[in-house]
Amino acid sequence: LFRDEFMDLHPYDQSVFFDKVDPEIRKQILHFLSPEEVAEIFEANNFDDDDYQELLEEMEPSYAADMLSHMYADNAVDVLNELDKEQVVSYLSMMDAESAQEIKDLLHYDEYTAGSIMTTEYVAIPESSTVRSAMTILRREAPDAETIYYLFVVNDDHFLTGVISLRDLIISDEDTLIKDIANERVVSVPVTEDQEEVARMMKDYDFLALPVVDHRGYLLGIITVDDIIDVLDEEASDDYSKLAAVSDMDTFDKNPLQAAKKRLPWLIILLFLGMFTANIIGMFEATLDQVALLAVFIPLIAGMAGNSGTQALAVAVRGIATGDIEEQSKLKLLFREAGTGLITGVISGIVVVLLVYFWKGDILIGLLVGAAISSSILVATIAGSFIPLLIHRMKIDPAVASGPFITTINDIISILIYLGLATTFISGL
Amino acid sequence: LFRDEFMDLHPYDQSVFFDKVDPEIRKQILHFLSPEEVAEIFEANNFDDDDYQELLEEMEPSYAADMLSHMYADNAVDVLNELDKEQVVSYLSMMDAESAQEIKDLLHYDEYTAGSIMTTEYVAIPESSTVRSAMTILRREAPDAETIYYLFVVNDDHFLTGVISLRDLIISDEDTLIKDIANERVVSVPVTEDQEEVARMMKDYDFLALPVVDHRGYLLGIITVDDIIDVLDEEASDDYSKLAAVSDMDTFDKNPLQAAKKRLPWLIILLFLGMFTANIIGMFEATLDQVALLAVFIPLIAGMAGNSGTQALAVAVRGIATGDIEEQSKLKLLFREAGTGLITGVISGIVVVLLVYFWKGDILIGLLVGAAISSSILVATIAGSFIPLLIHRMKIDPAVASGPFITTINDIISILIYLGLATTFISGL
Ligand SMILES: [Mg+2]
Ligand SMILES: [Mg+2]
Ligand SMILES: [Mg+2]
Ligand SMILES: [Mg+2]
Ligand SMILES: [Mg+2]
Ligand SMILES: [Mg+2]
Ligand SMILES: [Mg+2]
Ligand SMILES: [Mg+2]
Ligand SMILES: [Mg+2]
Ligand SMILES: [Mg+2]
Ligand SMILES: [Mg+2]
Ligand SMILES: [Mg+2]
Ligand SMILES: [Mg+2]
Repeated sequence: LFRDEFMDLHPYDQSVFFDKVDPEIRKQILHFLSPEEVAEIFEANNFDDDDYQELLEEMEPSYAADMLSHMYADNAVDVLNELDKEQVVSYLSMMDAESAQEIKDLLHYDEYTAGSIMTTEYVAIPESSTVRSAMTILRREAPDAETIYYLFVVNDDHFLTGVISLRDLIISDEDTLIKDIANERVVSVPVTEDQEEVARMMKDYDFLALPVVDHRGYLLGIITVDDIIDVLDEEASDDYSKLAAVSDMDTFDKNPLQAAKKRLPWLIILLFLGMFTANIIGMFEATLDQVALLAVFIPLIAGMAGNSGTQALAVAVRGIATGDIEEQSKLKLLFREAGTGLITGVISGIVVVLLVYFWKGDILIGLLVGAAISSSILVATIAGSFIPLLIHRMKIDPAVASGPFITTINDIISILIYLGLATTFISGL
Repeated sequence: LFRDEFMDLHPYDQSVFFDKVDPEIRKQILHFLSPEEVAEIFEANNFDDDDYQELLEEMEPSYAADMLSHMYADNAVDVLNELDKEQVVSYLSMMDAESAQEIKDLLHYDEYTAGSIMTTEYVAIPESSTVRSAMTILRREAPDAETIYYLFVVNDDHFLTGVISLRDLIISDEDTLIKDIANERVVSVPVTEDQEEVARMMKDYDFLALPVVDHRGYLLGIITVDDIIDVLDEEASDDYSKLAAVSDMDTFDKNPLQAAKKRLPWLIILLFLGMFTANIIGMFEATLDQVALLAVFIPLIAGMAGNSGTQALAVAVRGIATGDIEEQSKLKLLFREAGTGLITGVISGIVVVLLVYFWKGDILIGLLVGAAISSSILVATIAGSFIPLLIHRMKIDPAVASGPFITTINDIISILIYLGLATTFISGL
């Protein structure tokens, strides 16, 4: 009875339930279900990566191996990537040879590449088939294939030569040759391609699946749109957490100690950077000793530099992520940002001169603060766009130039400008 | 010849080309292409929203109307939403009645709801059909439907009663009744549902399309996965720009003035907030006058509070966006964050006491700065998670509690703690 109700749920809902209940109840559920049914629950891709090991250890090893062999190879690889090497070898040794080989092939590919998210369960059709024979192949492969809505056309050497959608197939005459109706301008991705670039292509071309080939054009696998949605979500979380300096977003089932572990490394790094900033201010202690009022504006100036730098950073990082920035337009972008920094800097500077004048009645301090803010915003805006572009050029993920790093650099620059100006003109203050 | 080469391109690539060239060349391209072919270029969804008006005005009005009627209704609506009301009315009046009505129906739905991203070009099958007649309907509707890979099963009143995938259809016997093989546990979304929630469901359930119903269960339309990818991308950009305080991400074809326009409003608001912070420090001018060294640590303490607050904010905002935070666990999250703030605060505090002691040889200032940092991080972490949760409860997008706002609040709190403590214990310094 419980089994019937459970099996009536969508696999995703099954996985939510499975995730929430106690291990004892999970073991009871496993008694009711076949490895194939449990594989569907794992397919839903709803568990935390950290939990895979525990979940598998709750099963009999042979049951777990059987379950893994029933998953699509790409998703089985996701699970295995979270286990120790010995465990992987042991599970693979318990599987049927075909599944084990499929998984082994996929395990080789580097994380974050097309190879790491592709699956080998696709439908390939020889060029010389007719629509009728293609439909027969399709019906035979349907239970195992991850998608049957695209058929990938290959020549005798299994090189990708075209693609045809099931939509086009079912409206074609049964005797038509596949090679006459297949689209030969098939878009494919190299197996070493970055997953983010694959996601961008899927988004642009609105495909449901993309074929993956080696450098010769040999068809290796396909990437399905559901996995691309996960990639986009993962990459967005990743960029977002880097801007906020949380190494890899902690989720809500973690306890305070686990959450602190993810945040402390950043905080300690930022603490050292902050001490460096304090050091710079310390060099101007004599100036501050003479005019204590100067200290009042330090956070304002550093803050404005930080904010404008973060704005520029966000535009650049996001532009790189979405592929909007191409090679040739980088210099143009820097000039654009310099112009933007000049405009925002001058206007903010004028506003601040007026504000300080009306608040303190002091035109000299106002001019000093205004000049410092104008030039800080200009420099910060340029730095905020230049640094991610530079890092990107060095083939590093520009998102590592996270908000707080840029902010620290801009803190230092702006304080040097402000207290430097103040020290130079101190006789006037 | 040019026409052949152009038409050989994928519609997305056509749209990239179309977007880049001069208006005169665009006009020449339009001469070669039928409204139906141009509709495909517009389907690729590659143009900036701001450019639609201009692009349409480059066409003859009747040509533009014809083109719009050949687009899928959901995408035509996206275009029309960017035009003036009179223009919309005028284009609709030039269309065939059926297309105009379809588009009019969709124009009613609020932005960011399921209704605003759904299309009416789906395949509906009566419950009582056989597989054979379903295939006939499918072949007939295929040229117009946005997807034919899901067939939506309806009763005589057009209420949604089930769904069947083309995959299941083609492996079924031709005489089987649809109602015997359709999945009756069909997942649908209400037409008023938030698009972000729809995206979350699509991601979780790995669907290629989701049916949209009214409150009675009447089938109104479907949402396809390619549009959901655009929603996810848009929402991620949106959250990211809010964290960085850029109102709506500016793209790279904008000039400095246009870019400055998007950033200045935020900078000016933050300037006023910063003046407020300066005011708070100003209240402690006497203390700073006595011990200038105190000023040296203000950016460090404010910075650490800002960073830990932003971390907590990011976790909360992202958790709300991905739906990981449910109603019941909010109090638990706040306790978790309090615990996290305590751990990170105490450890950062200890590190800073040691650093200041070794740098300045001054244990008292070190203890003061350490105590200020510990308590600031604790308070900032709690504020960083509490504020977005509160805003979310008030049914406002929590992402508006952007990084700099939280940072300003945390600046003020941390400076009050630090200079408050310093003033209290000034005799000892
Ligand atoms: Mg297998
Ligand atoms: Mg994978
Ligand atoms: Mg798209
Ligand atoms: Mg897949
Ligand atoms: Mg999946
Ligand atoms: Mg990335
Ligand atoms: Mg139409
Ligand atoms: Mg729309
Ligand atoms: Mg929303
Ligand atoms: Mg999914
Ligand atoms: Mg659509
Ligand atoms: Mg589309
Ligand atoms: Mg949002």
